[in-house]
Amino acid sequence: MNCEDFSKLPIYLIGAGNVASHLGIAFHKSGIAIKSIWSRNIYNAITLSKIINSGHTDNLNVISNEKAVYIISVPDNVISDIVKIIGKNNSILIHTSGSTSIDILQSYSDNYGVFYPLQTFSKTKKDIDFNEIPVLIEFSNNLVNELLISWCNLIGVKYTNADSEQRMKLHIAAVFANNFTNHMFAIAQELSETYKIDFNLLRPLIAETFEKIKSFNPKDIQTGPAIRNDEETIKLHLKSLSNNPDLAKIYSFVSESIIQMHKKEK
Amino acid sequence: MNCEDFSKLPIYLIGAGNVASHLGIAFHKSGIAIKSIWSRNIYNAITLSKIINSGHTDNLNVISNEKAVYIISVPDNVISDIVKIIGKNNSILIHTSGSTSIDILQSYSDNYGVFYPLQTFSKTKKDIDFNEIPVLIEFSNNLVNELLISWCNLIGVKYTNADSEQRMKLHIAAVFANNFTNHMFAIAQELSETYKIDFNLLRPLIAETFEKIKSFNPKDIQTGPAIRNDEETIKLHLKSLSNNPDLAKIYSFVSESIIQMHKKEK
Repeated sequence: MNCEDFSKLPIYLIGAGNVASHLGIAFHKSGIAIKSIWSRNIYNAITLSKIINSGHTDNLNVISNEKAVYIISVPDNVISDIVKIIGKNNSILIHTSGSTSIDILQSYSDNYGVFYPLQTFSKTKKDIDFNEIPVLIEFSNNLVNELLISWCNLIGVKYTNADSEQRMKLHIAAVFANNFTNHMFAIAQELSETYKIDFNLLRPLIAETFEKIKSFNPKDIQTGPAIRNDEETIKLHLKSLSNNPDLAKIYSFVSESIIQMHKKEK
Repeated sequence: MNCEDFSKLPIYLIGAGNVASHLGIAFHKSGIAIKSIWSRNIYNAITLSKIINSGHTDNLNVISNEKAVYIISVPDNVISDIVKIIGKNNSILIHTSGSTSIDILQSYSDNYGVFYPLQTFSKTKKDIDFNEIPVLIEFSNNLVNELLISWCNLIGVKYTNADSEQRMKLHIAAVFANNFTNHMFAIAQELSETYKIDFNLLRPLIAETFEKIKSFNPKDIQTGPAIRNDEETIKLHLKSLSNNPDLAKIYSFVSESIIQMHKKEK
């Protein structure tokens, strides 16, 4: 067992969504060949296979007959259904999920791990510099560890060891730092449309928000009516949002959260 | 009256906070002299006066005896107290607030206006390129309009005419686009501290969040558990946040808002 070299095994990419596509392309660019891509949607598999010069299928049984490495990059709630089918031959099972424990894989193989790139991936935006992305890895044994590290070295990413609990916690922080900030921008965009204001007027403000974050801790640079305890402005804004109760609720809630966070500091 | 040229009058800067400091410096750099700065806190007035080579005082009566231009850059709820004292001699009263109506100035002069730079200003971050900042202006008469435009031209900023209602609505959008996004980063930072995770691991994600915003509409690039309707992950995250009910509430609330926004689109 110890003389095995997992890097000689064929690699199958399970999934052709946002993460799978960016991973597949990064592997391909780094000279790591993907033998075939599976997707429930064969058209997605075909599209990606053309870019990374691999096979494609929508039938898991076809690609589960040999000992292989499976990179499972599918929605979290589908992982267990997938591994039930491909988890044979003591194959190497690697999932790429932030919030799914490594334990989901343990009944199907001795060789399993996690390769979680901490980044936001959209198919609409293709040029992501993988070298800048922290990858969190976890593994069931040293051979899997070596395989994951060899991938990181070939792609040129920095990796960090993290157990499933740490990875999930970082994922929660990432939800706030990316998904929720993006939603705040989306609300600003929606408000601009409602108010017939040019969203571009806000772009210098957004750019400065980001510039500040590069050099300062976000807590130290909070501005706005809430941190000033400017109740009159908050009331005025809430009144203006009263025809949109959902937004008013978010406004009032996040303002309260800002007040609470900075009260603790004083 | 029409032959008056307000640009010959002395300019007093009322306030020495975040906005006042950045404005004072921008005016000074553009060759627009500030005669004196008033602040309730004389030390703040002195600090700023040294940078922009002006006088300083904490006594409004001292600077209200002549016809002058007053740039009133103080917390919104203090503006009316200030103008009660300085609003004499039909002086030119200009406030810099996003959400305060121009009407607050009308009882004290015929000559009043608003000069609102749509940006986030912190004293901790000094180097702001004013040329990039949209300034919204409003005015009671053409002479004030000319004065405001001459400032914009000297400083080199793009100005947009906006009435008080439009300005307040843009301010609300700005609260979401800056204050609330920054708070989401602050929560991510706080979570990293609680979880003993290096906040720097999140920086590439934050950088990519902003890179995407430059080229795409935020609504079109939303990612994360909420837009995927990934209830299991949301439940898992809420369970993990259960020892911090405030954060759990924000998490649940913003996730719901994401789901609602994108449901409308489908």
